[in-house]
Amino acid sequence: MTVNYELDPNLKRDTYVMGKLSDNYLLLNKNSLYPWFIIVPPTEEIEFYNLSREAQLQLLDQINEISVFIKQNFNSTKLNVACIGNVVSQLHIHIIGRHRDDACWPGVVWGNEQFNAYQTHQVQELQQKLVEQPGNNFYKL
Amino acid sequence: MTVNYELDPNLKRDTYVMGKLSDNYLLLNKNSLYPWFIIVPPTEEIEFYNLSREAQLQLLDQINEISVFIKQNFNSTKLNVACIGNVVSQLHIHIIGRHRDDACWPGVVWGNEQFNAYQTHQVQELQQKLVEQPGNNFYKL
Repeated sequence: MTVNYELDPNLKRDTYVMGKLSDNYLLLNKNSLYPWFIIVPPTEEIEFYNLSREAQLQLLDQINEISVFIKQNFNSTKLNVACIGNVVSQLHIHIIGRHRDDACWPGVVWGNEQFNAYQTHQVQELQQKLVEQPGNNFYKL
Repeated sequence: MTVNYELDPNLKRDTYVMGKLSDNYLLLNKNSLYPWFIIVPPTEEIEFYNLSREAQLQLLDQINEISVFIKQNFNSTKLNVACIGNVVSQLHIHIIGRHRDDACWPGVVWGNEQFNAYQTHQVQELQQKLVEQPGNNFYKL
């Protein structure tokens, strides 16, 4: 049985819904300047430390999976992993591949206005690569 | 037996060494505008996903402990938890208490230039509160 829950309108607007990792939404930020994934678990909590141990461990595994995915598919210098939520309170985890030549290196991506759109086929190709990655629980909706 | 390891010079310059949580350094950023703690585990790895399961779980526990500590001692609106490392490659985790009236809300603290120093007694009081917090493994050096 899958858990259904609503995404925050800001997350809906700013991302592509790639699919799910177990019950958690996996989103891709529409800004193609960085491979920028976001995991959103089904919870009303806004702080990571208030999640159940089970939910924390599941997120830990998924952070590891998406980290490996980014490292295998992009030439990233460094991963940025963060739970911020100052603007969007729905709990969500950013996992971003950064490169020393990218648009705002070594600054952080949050608050940076530079933007470049994906082409539709690029998003579809990324989604297919997620399906094919061994060992993750990703599925399309 | 405790593990001894060197802190990155930038971390040394920008933080107070509060003590340790098990083998991991617990630092306090010298900017008093936000309660800004940093955990530094003894590792040569620069990416969280490359840490051993044991090291990841220990960090998870310590993130939870410091999150509770911040929530109990500051009137924080939101916690920001992040592993970035674009400038300082030594692996370190930020745990920051943010308030809707603080210097750069709702922006992130990284890259913001505003600064206010602590008074020595404030740092000592925070250190003492860490010693007294039930359930954590904090100790002074």
